[in-house]
Amino acid sequence: MDSEDIIIGIGGNSLVVDRNHQSIPDQWLAIKRTCENIADLVEEGINPVITHGNGPQVGFAVLRSEAGKKLEGLHTDPLDVCVASTQATIGYMIQQALQSELRRRNIEKPICVVVTRVLVDKDDPAFSNPTKPIGPFYTKEEAEAKIKEFGWVMKEDANRGWRRVVPSPKPIDILEIDVIKSLFKQNVIVVAVGGGGIPVIKNERGEYVGVEAVIDKDLATSLLASLLGVKTMVISTAVEFVYKNFGKKDQKPLRNITLPEAVELLKRGEFAEGSMAPKIRASIEFLQRDGERVIITNPQNLLFAFKGKTGTTIIKS
Amino acid sequence: MDSEDIIIGIGGNSLVVDRNHQSIPDQWLAIKRTCENIADLVEEGINPVITHGNGPQVGFAVLRSEAGKKLEGLHTDPLDVCVASTQATIGYMIQQALQSELRRRNIEKPICVVVTRVLVDKDDPAFSNPTKPIGPFYTKEEAEAKIKEFGWVMKEDANRGWRRVVPSPKPIDILEIDVIKSLFKQNVIVVAVGGGGIPVIKNERGEYVGVEAVIDKDLATSLLASLLGVKTMVISTAVEFVYKNFGKKDQKPLRNITLPEAVELLKRGEFAEGSMAPKIRASIEFLQRDGERVIITNPQNLLFAFKGKTGTTIIKS
Repeated sequence: MDSEDIIIGIGGNSLVVDRNHQSIPDQWLAIKRTCENIADLVEEGINPVITHGNGPQVGFAVLRSEAGKKLEGLHTDPLDVCVASTQATIGYMIQQALQSELRRRNIEKPICVVVTRVLVDKDDPAFSNPTKPIGPFYTKEEAEAKIKEFGWVMKEDANRGWRRVVPSPKPIDILEIDVIKSLFKQNVIVVAVGGGGIPVIKNERGEYVGVEAVIDKDLATSLLASLLGVKTMVISTAVEFVYKNFGKKDQKPLRNITLPEAVELLKRGEFAEGSMAPKIRASIEFLQRDGERVIITNPQNLLFAFKGKTGTTIIKS
Repeated sequence: MDSEDIIIGIGGNSLVVDRNHQSIPDQWLAIKRTCENIADLVEEGINPVITHGNGPQVGFAVLRSEAGKKLEGLHTDPLDVCVASTQATIGYMIQQALQSELRRRNIEKPICVVVTRVLVDKDDPAFSNPTKPIGPFYTKEEAEAKIKEFGWVMKEDANRGWRRVVPSPKPIDILEIDVIKSLFKQNVIVVAVGGGGIPVIKNERGEYVGVEAVIDKDLATSLLASLLGVKTMVISTAVEFVYKNFGKKDQKPLRNITLPEAVELLKRGEFAEGSMAPKIRASIEFLQRDGERVIITNPQNLLFAFKGKTGTTIIKS
């Protein structure tokens, strides 16, 4: 296989072994497995840029921040700071695990975790309509207390209780793009836009200011791919394929589809919001710019999918 | 003034306004002030590499981690992960504040926060003799409760109360040095080895593994300066000068001293451990390699000290 540049977005949930018991040893194990799969690609001559989600982890950071206030009288950290912290903690773990795995294969490549800010529009409609759930479920009484104490927006989730929802504005620029591009061109494996990036707006004085929001990591990955001129985007998620009629009796894996087909399936509501729909939306945006190919599969099938043997591949036409 | 490369290490305590109430707005304010002083240097044509401490902040991270376990049943984060998180949170805040300040002065320079691992020797004697204080001060009763609850080692700190102490092994290499060097040569303002760097050892299989320790940020800064070939190291701390007989009636500011004088004063016990002594020790190491000048002063006097008008300057001979 020839050398090829790709971007890989790793889901925040593939970075923990089990949703209920996500200890640090568990996280190391999950990250180690995912990095073995990424190392398979590197061994084939592929130069990856790595991005990752932080769904569970940013939830932990917010909970710790609140617990620290309650028990120790510490200040709480706003969401931009919580996202920043997950970029380093997850990035560090990816860096350690991937470097060890590459060394076992006698591959020496520098890996750099770049703390990344992503610009969003201060007038993005998402700010007046928070939709992205983060953190745990609360009872009605707990939710009312949080609304009163922190001014959070809370929404009831059918039967599971109340959850905080935050704005998920669209990423419009990556502030560290020049640095990321330079490192990428020097053959460094860059880990960037972790958790979708630290969300910042530009205020009236032209300063960047962090905001209480979480950017969709697939949209941020897609934007980074386009800004780097990378033609292949790989989304590593919980399933081997994207499905039509997912979860129903007649569910059918989609092997090869085109951009117009993806647009049509999304329009028909084939993909669940909060799950596959944002990944497809990010893929469509990428292919509508100058992306050429999107591969969606689970970590253990990355190499097979890359060789066209499994996974869902979306091409321009 | 000609263009000159320097490294600036900012003390973790100069990144918070007040030891007792260190909210995020307070931290922004303190960082903003320090960044104004760094911007003064940049405006004079100086290219800084920035490092920073994380004493108070890593303490908060540990407390939050413990509180999250107690209140929410979350796993706790080991110290290497806590250090990683402070690299991104403090680094992000420095990046935002410094970029805004430079823009106000019409200076556009990229700033990059590099998550940095620092190698220590697994047989470093520090592991059996913890000395580095982290986190807040406690009363004797509070300290006793922490020892009982978490098995922490606690020590009394010069009249300010009790504090947790952790191993502080000597930094021997910076794993991201090639990337940092490359960015530095491209005129990027790099923020690196935050909190002394994420401490890792090399195990028998040649893998890097994080450890429960905190590396002295001045020693890490000194090592980074030498590896980058930077000749001037600036240590930004709480006092305008290094003093002889500090805190006594006949205390005397040291304006200009030489490396042999610094060695002699340190040997005579002129500098307090946990305060000025590690800074002097890091300065000595730097000058004994190929460093040429060390400046020690407080943030508001950075530029004056750089011009030789205040602060303590240590030269080779």
